[in-house]
Amino acid sequence: MTATVMDPIKITNEELSEEFLNKYDTFLFDCDGVLWLGTHLLPHTKEILSQLTEMGKQCVFVTNNSTKSRAAYTKKFAGFGITVTEDQIFTSGYASAVYVRDFLKLQPGKDKIWIFGESGISEELSLMGFESLGGTDPRLDTPFNASTSPFLANGLDENVKCVIAGLDNKINYHRLAITLQYLQKKDTVHFVGTNVDSTFPQKGFTFPGAGSMVESIAFSSGRRPSYCGKPNMNMLNTIISAKKLDRSKCCMVGDRLNTDMRFGVEGKLGGTLLVLSGIETEERALEASDEHPNPKYYIEKLGDIYEYTH
Amino acid sequence: MTATVMDPIKITNEELSEEFLNKYDTFLFDCDGVLWLGTHLLPHTKEILSQLTEMGKQCVFVTNNSTKSRAAYTKKFAGFGITVTEDQIFTSGYASAVYVRDFLKLQPGKDKIWIFGESGISEELSLMGFESLGGTDPRLDTPFNASTSPFLANGLDENVKCVIAGLDNKINYHRLAITLQYLQKKDTVHFVGTNVDSTFPQKGFTFPGAGSMVESIAFSSGRRPSYCGKPNMNMLNTIISAKKLDRSKCCMVGDRLNTDMRFGVEGKLGGTLLVLSGIETEERALEASDEHPNPKYYIEKLGDIYEYTH
Repeated sequence: MTATVMDPIKITNEELSEEFLNKYDTFLFDCDGVLWLGTHLLPHTKEILSQLTEMGKQCVFVTNNSTKSRAAYTKKFAGFGITVTEDQIFTSGYASAVYVRDFLKLQPGKDKIWIFGESGISEELSLMGFESLGGTDPRLDTPFNASTSPFLANGLDENVKCVIAGLDNKINYHRLAITLQYLQKKDTVHFVGTNVDSTFPQKGFTFPGAGSMVESIAFSSGRRPSYCGKPNMNMLNTIISAKKLDRSKCCMVGDRLNTDMRFGVEGKLGGTLLVLSGIETEERALEASDEHPNPKYYIEKLGDIYEYTH
Repeated sequence: MTATVMDPIKITNEELSEEFLNKYDTFLFDCDGVLWLGTHLLPHTKEILSQLTEMGKQCVFVTNNSTKSRAAYTKKFAGFGITVTEDQIFTSGYASAVYVRDFLKLQPGKDKIWIFGESGISEELSLMGFESLGGTDPRLDTPFNASTSPFLANGLDENVKCVIAGLDNKINYHRLAITLQYLQKKDTVHFVGTNVDSTFPQKGFTFPGAGSMVESIAFSSGRRPSYCGKPNMNMLNTIISAKKLDRSKCCMVGDRLNTDMRFGVEGKLGGTLLVLSGIETEERALEASDEHPNPKYYIEKLGDIYEYTH
C-alpha cells in the first residue's frame, strides 16, 4: 500500500513513545484485551498506569462489559494491585443508567426499569434511586410457563418505562419472553441496549456477546434499541461531561477497530491507540476499510510504552 | 378502498364455500391458529377435515413448529380425535432435515449435524440415519464454563458439517456458545434455520419465536442461515416433490400473511385462504402492503365452511 500522512504510526521505540505520551492529557482505556486478558494481567500494565499518573495524566477506564458495576470493577483492579476509584470507570451498564436518567428523563422513585442482563446494570440504577425488575431475579431462573410465571400472573408493572438489555450469562426463555412483553408496550416503554458487540474473546475462544442477545430481542419485538456502549456517542458524552474533558487532549486506547477506534475517531478525540494484545492484527490495523477507521497509533501491547521509556 | 378483481374474497355463505371447495384438489393447512389454538381445537375442525376427505380432497399439514417431529404431530392430531398419517405432515424440522440430505447432500452415517433446537429436529434426522449432536443433550443444561464444557474439552467434532437452528425452549448460554463455535468453521459447516418467525401466539400473549433465536446466532456468527420453513420455497419444494402435487390445484390455508399467504403466492399455488382465527385481522387482510401479499380468499374461521355447507 502507498504510505500517506494518515497511515497509522507503529510505536516501536522511546522517541515515538515520548511523542505519543506528550500529546495527550487524558487516556481512555478499554480494559479487556488492553490491560488484561480475562483474569491474566498483561505485562507492565501496572507500571504504565503508575507512570501516567506520575506524569500528571488522567486515566479513565471505558468498558462495554455491562455484567459488572463500577464498584465491582474497582475490586477487579484492586485484585491486580491497581488502585482505581469508581469515578474513573465507565461501563456500558452505567452509561445506560445515565442515559435513562439524563436523556430519557425517567424519574427515580417513580419510573421503573425492566432489565435483561446482569447485576452491573441493576446496581448502577439502584445507586441512582431507580427500582429495577427482572435481571438476576431468581424467579426468572425457572422454566417458563405462561400460566404460572409470576411476572405475568398479575399483569405487567405499569410503572416500567424502559427495558435495558445487555449480556446475560443466564439467558433463558423466561427472561426473553417477559422482556418481550414489556417491549410490546411501544408507546410507553423505551428500549436501551448496553452495547452492540456481537462476540467477545475468552480463553482463546470467541463467545456470543451482548449484541447477539439485544438483537434477538430487537428481532422478536420489531424494535430498534438505543445502544449506549462504545462506539455509541452516548457513552462518550457521559464521560466528557462527567470529567469535563477537552476532546483534543484525549486519546482512546483499545483493542478493537470497530468499537474502540471508531469511538475515538467519531468522538473527535485527539488520538487513538490500537493495541495488538487483544483481537486485532497488524494487517487489520493497516488495511483501508469502510467498516472501521484506522488508528492514529498502534503498538504490540500497552506495556511496551513503559519498556521503551525505562 | 377501490374494489378490483384482485381484492380478497370473503367467504360468507354456502355458494362461496362451494365455489372455493370445488376449485382445489389439495389443501395445505397451517395448524396452530387454523385447526387449533394451542391445546384448544377450533369449532368444526374435525368436521371440515372429514368433509374434505369424503370429497376426495387431499389434506396436507404444514407447520413451522420445529419442536415436534411428524410422529409427535400425529399424536397431537390423535389427541383431538383426528386421524392423520405421518406422510401428511410437514414440519420445518423435517424440511430442514430433507434440505440437509437432498440439497446439501450430507451423508447419513458419516456427516453429523449440530442442533440448536428441540427433539422435532433430531428425531427427523435420526430417521434419515443422521447422527446429531447438541439439541436436547442434558449436558447442555448446565451453566457454561469454557474450561469445563464437555463440548470444548476434546475439541469440536470434525464430522459436524451443518448447524440446524430452531426454536429452543431451553435456550441458554451453553447452547449459544457451542453453536457459535461450530458456525465459526465457515468453510466446512453449513447453517440452516428451521423458520424465521419472530414470534408465536400463545394464550393471548405473543412470545419469542424461532427466528429470534436463529437471528441471534446469525448476528454472533456474522453468517446468514438458509431458512427452510414457510415462506421459504425449500419447504414447498419438499412437499410438492413428496406428494407429486399440481400447484395450480393446491390451496394454502393459514393465519399469517407474511408466512402462510406469502408461501402460497410465491409458490404459485392455485389459491390461498386466510383464516382470521389466528393472528391477523380483516383490516390487515384487505390492506395493500409491500410486506405481504393479500390472500385470494379469507374467512372468519375454517369451520365456517362446514357450517355454510351443512
